[in-house]
Amino acid sequence: MKKTAIAAILSLAATAVVAQAPQVKPEDHIKWRQSAYSVMGLHFGSLAAMAQDKKPYNKEEAIRDADFVALLATEPRNHFGEGTDKGRDTKAKPEIWQKRSDFDSKMDKMVSETGKLPQVARNGDLAALKAAVGETGKACKACHDEYRQK
Amino acid sequence: MKKTAIAAILSLAATAVVAQAPQVKPEDHIKWRQSAYSVMGLHFGSLAAMAQDKKPYNKEEAIRDADFVALLATEPRNHFGEGTDKGRDTKAKPEIWQKRSDFDSKMDKMVSETGKLPQVARNGDLAALKAAVGETGKACKACHDEYRQK
Repeated sequence: MKKTAIAAILSLAATAVVAQAPQVKPEDHIKWRQSAYSVMGLHFGSLAAMAQDKKPYNKEEAIRDADFVALLATEPRNHFGEGTDKGRDTKAKPEIWQKRSDFDSKMDKMVSETGKLPQVARNGDLAALKAAVGETGKACKACHDEYRQK
Repeated sequence: MKKTAIAAILSLAATAVVAQAPQVKPEDHIKWRQSAYSVMGLHFGSLAAMAQDKKPYNKEEAIRDADFVALLATEPRNHFGEGTDKGRDTKAKPEIWQKRSDFDSKMDKMVSETGKLPQVARNGDLAALKAAVGETGKACKACHDEYRQK
């Protein structure tokens, strides 16, 4: 490929992000947070299945799942800014922006619990993994109960 | 929270995934691959902006971006199975399932190039990062040109 073609791709990719500074569209923030939750949910579901003996425990798979959950868990908080309550179908309740500090603290708790999963998964102790997955599930639920529409 | 409530959450999360074995719906595969590409694109766009001097280079941010890109790059290949060509709006061309080995080899190349980014970003050499981002951009484009609708 010619240098100019590569430059064109990178330029296009870069433009999408540089535009983020103040001008990023609410619908893009909504899409990014939903996308992060979607892939996070896929991998948390796998961990939960292992934790519940609904799927055979596999250490390597658990590590991969934990890495996905922990990393993706850090993304959504960047996409709940003011004005991102509409612009695309969303289950986010208006209460997020009305009770910001409570929402943020529940988000912090979720990030903190998910952040423990990669090491716990690497330790290979299934009982400890089950406990950590349970704590993560509680942290997810605390926010969903209050801030996500059914 | 009661133990039973936690069990209920985990059970729900687990069911979504256990159901994957053979019964997972094509639309879910499409959603997961699109979600992975979406968050990957956000972070690759940030790297591309730094590589093109459209955004100030920041080593910690580049590492975070690289980690996202590398991990998420490994997800979509799990969601392009037979029958996932429809079920939800998708830009995936039918050629994916007609020229499978070529598609897989382009996917492998992309995963291989993105896999180098976390270490390159940690090395902190901007010239090397620019080169690696360029190679990654080429690998992305090779697949998009042939297998993604405009």
